[in-house]
Formats: sequence, C-alpha cells, structure tokens
Amino acid sequence: MSSLSGQTVGLIGLGLMGQPMGRNLLNAGADLIVYNRSPEKIGIMVEAGATGAASSQAVAEIADMVIIVSVDTSTLENILFGENGVIGVVRDESLIIDMGTSDADATRAFAKKIEAAGGRYIDAPVSGGTVGAEQATLTIMAGGDAQDIERARPVFDVLGSRLTHIGPQGAGQVAKTANQMIVGLTIGAVAEALVLAKRAGADPAKVREALKGGFADSRILELHGERMITENFEPGGKCATQCKDMELALALAAKVGLDLPGTALNRELYIRAIEAGWGGLDHSALFKVIADNPA
Amino acid sequence: MSSLSGQTVGLIGLGLMGQPMGRNLLNAGADLIVYNRSPEKIGIMVEAGATGAASSQAVAEIADMVIIVSVDTSTLENILFGENGVIGVVRDESLIIDMGTSDADATRAFAKKIEAAGGRYIDAPVSGGTVGAEQATLTIMAGGDAQDIERARPVFDVLGSRLTHIGPQGAGQVAKTANQMIVGLTIGAVAEALVLAKRAGADPAKVREALKGGFADSRILELHGERMITENFEPGGKCATQCKDMELALALAAKVGLDLPGTALNRELYIRAIEAGWGGLDHSALFKVIADNPA
Repeated sequence: MSSLSGQTVGLIGLGLMGQPMGRNLLNAGADLIVYNRSPEKIGIMVEAGATGAASSQAVAEIADMVIIVSVDTSTLENILFGENGVIGVVRDESLIIDMGTSDADATRAFAKKIEAAGGRYIDAPVSGGTVGAEQATLTIMAGGDAQDIERARPVFDVLGSRLTHIGPQGAGQVAKTANQMIVGLTIGAVAEALVLAKRAGADPAKVREALKGGFADSRILELHGERMITENFEPGGKCATQCKDMELALALAAKVGLDLPGTALNRELYIRAIEAGWGGLDHSALFKVIADNPA
Repeated sequence: MSSLSGQTVGLIGLGLMGQPMGRNLLNAGADLIVYNRSPEKIGIMVEAGATGAASSQAVAEIADMVIIVSVDTSTLENILFGENGVIGVVRDESLIIDMGTSDADATRAFAKKIEAAGGRYIDAPVSGGTVGAEQATLTIMAGGDAQDIERARPVFDVLGSRLTHIGPQGAGQVAKTANQMIVGLTIGAVAEALVLAKRAGADPAKVREALKGGFADSRILELHGERMITENFEPGGKCATQCKDMELALALAAKVGLDLPGTALNRELYIRAIEAGWGGLDHSALFKVIADNPA
C-alpha cells in the first residue's frame, strides 16, 4: 500500500463503498476530511480518525483532492452544484474525482462546469463491490486527462488493485456502464442455467463445480452462483441498484441510437424482482425471479 | 498424460472435436479404432496411426469402450440404433460413452436400450472447444454410475483436465445444457456492452482491459471479447450450433414447465445471425447482430 502520509484528501459519500475506501485512505496515512448527508456516518469516520466537515463545500475548501462516491447522478449533481456545493470553492488546485456511478453525458457537463470555475475533473468509477472496497482490490475505470489521473494515482493505488485509463472525461462512466450490463446479464445467465439444472434433476452445486475452468466460467458464476445455490441473498449489490444501472445503460443506448434487447429484458426482470419486494436483496436474487416464474 | 498403452478404444465421430481427441488418445498409446460417416476423415486418422472401421458396429465389435462425439441427438441415435449401429454387437463388456451434446431425456432412453442389450452407458459431454480438445484441457461433465465413470477415467484423464460426476445418466447433458446457456448469454452480454461502449465513444479494447479482474470478468470476455474487438469470427463454436444448443435448453425447460426469457431472447438473436448469413461464423458474431441493429 502506497503512503499518503501528510496528504489531505477529501471524501464525500460514506455509504457501503465510501466507508471502507475512507478507512483504507486513513490506513495509508492520509489526512482525511469527510462529509455525508446523514451525520451519523460522519461520526463513524471521525472515530476512525477522519476530520468531519459541515458540508461538501467545507470538504472542498480544505482538500485540493476531493473524492465523491455518490449513489446516483442527481446526488452527485447536488454535491457539486447544490446548496453548499463544491463549485463555490473550486480553485486551480482543485481535482474532483467522481468514483460513484453516474451518467456519462452528465459527467461531461459536470466536468465543463468545474473546469469553467478553474478546477479539474475526472471520473473514476469502480467495480468489485464492498469486498473490493474493503480489501483495496477495486478495479478503477478512469476518464479524463492523463496528467490529472497521474496526480490521483497515489490515491487509486491505495483504493484498488487495477487502474485503466479508458479515455477522456465520461469514458470511465461508459466503461462502468458496460461493466454493470455484463454483471446483470451474466447473473441472469447463471440464474437461468442453475434453475433449469435444478428443475431437470441435476445438483446445481455440482453443475457450477463442473463449469469452473470452462467457457462458462466467470466471477459471477463463482460468487453469485454460490449465493444462488445457498440462497443467501444478503447484499452485495442490490437488485434496485442493478435495475438503475440497466436504466443508465438503456438511456445511453437510446442517445446513440442503439437497441439493446438483452439489457432491456434484464431490466424488466429486475423490475419484477423489485415488485416482488426483493429490491433490497443481492442482485443474484434474479435467481428467485426465474425460479418463481413457471411457463 | 496417462498411458493407455495396449488398451483398445473406439471413437465414432471425427469432426472438429473428435479428431484432436483421437490424436490425444493415440499419443497416449491407445489402440484406436475409428469410424466416421464421411470416409476422408477416417483416412486422416488412419494416417495418424488409428485403425479404420467400416461402420459404427464394426468399431463396437472390436472395442469394449466406445466414445461417440456426435453433432446432435439424432446423429447419436443413428450411430447407436440405426443401420449397422452399435446396438447390434453390445455385450457385457461394452461401455458406450457419449461425449457429444445430446438431449438429456433422449440420453436416458438410449441408456436404457443399451443396458437392456447388456451394455453400460454414460454421458460425458465436454466444454472447452477445439482448443481444449487439442490441448487436452477439456472440462468433462459426466452422468452415469460411478463405477462406469471410474472405468472410463484413464481415457478422460487423457482428453481433459477436469472431470465432474454430476449425477445419474442424463445429468452430464443437463450440465452441458447449462454450460451452453451461460456461454450464449454471456456472449450476448459482452456483445451489448462492447457495442454500446464503442458507440458511446470509448475504446472497447480498453473497456475490456479495464473489466478484467472485476465482477464482469469471464472466460467469454477474455476469449470472445477479443474476437469481437478484432472482428475475427473464425469458428470456434458456430452461431448455428449455439442456436441449436439454446433450442435444446428451451425444449428441456418446456418439459419441466419453466420459462427462460433470457435464453429465449438469445435464441432469437442467434436466429437473426443465421438469417443474416452468419450461421457458420463463431458464436461471438452475435456482436454483429447487436452492432447492425439500430433502435
């Protein structure tokens, strides 16, 4: 783990991902200044050694480098441009790093506004879930100028195990959308295969075991396949979040005039999961949608 | 590689999979006796050191252990029970090993008929494609009695790197169906994600690179993702075969009263590929179906 000793880093958004990321930054020696809408999470991080701030703006006032881990595009917009938002104190030294999942077009618009105010902006969403955040093994997909990404590299080295510079601002979010599409659709694939195997009298645990190492092998088969077999749907990533990610993908596809039939169907299946009351369960609970849905 | 020195092994079906499997059996020292409908392929294997037979029956007459690698269920049925079929010479020592892809219910019916004639029957389909067949790294999914599978183990050790005993006769074919579903659906997932990334201005090669090691990682992203990026659709597994595999899955699902919406859609997309004249291309050519299909 690289050392961030003496470096001030801002962190806005202390949810399932932000909290473990913040702990890793503290462990690496950073002077961490944090803000979150619900104050009890600020308290948890202050106890861990961070400095609490009264607003997003207060974070950006003290820290030149500000990481934002927001749950969606509108929350990010509010952090940047809402009341007591980051924009009010942006200066030449400011580097804003969006590590949440946001709309790619909105990313480009947000970046323009931050740059017009004198600051720098990169999008660097992640894959790997809470486990990856805790173990600092996140995959980071970055969009923006190379020199800005290099400036953030010591922080990325602390948070993840893999950094890919995809392209200009927004490209990180495009890669993240692609990532979420593959995750949702592969969960659907494994769900249909394991439900059918079970229904046709084969032990799904043995089927999953047999498929390892072959063409059907994937991280989803390994992790989410296991969750389906044990029917343990504690999240991890939630069905409701996965559904929202598929909507982001379909919105982006519509903008570029592309039909994504698999993604559209996958979104419908996640809507069924939410309607069944499973929106808060792990996204692998798509297994239940397939299993409970006789022809 | 285990030695099969002095052991007589029969092999019926010398296609893209059967030929390299036969070479590995010869390299392990087996006395290999082969048959294929088109005689030029018998000639190729005779040149490599095998003994050619005049019919499927002639193979089963000489070899106690007979491997069949047929392209579909009806071809297998014909090899077993058609004119000059295996059934005519089945005896107590006969072990019939179906390593092709067949219908699970038909497998159970075929096994009963072979057993009624005194022989033994296991299904042991594989995953790993022609590369896996050549490198002897196939994943083998076996259905049948444990002692029959143990008897075939020296042969499986020569042909593959992984053997899982799924359950009774037919269970291997159920696992293979699950495998093919995941393969087809994951190809669809990667195709939609990479086409969208490209259309939205991100370099799909960089996106694929970024996704490695994360939740979206899979053998399909690795192998078929590469084929999509370079647009090299030499098969590998063909679109027409993948379509047939999805039909097998849907037929099995209908028998157990299960609706598989993703599999049904995937089959439709492969039908579009075939209608566009791409049935002979690699199954990763689903990329072309998505790319050529504006909203």
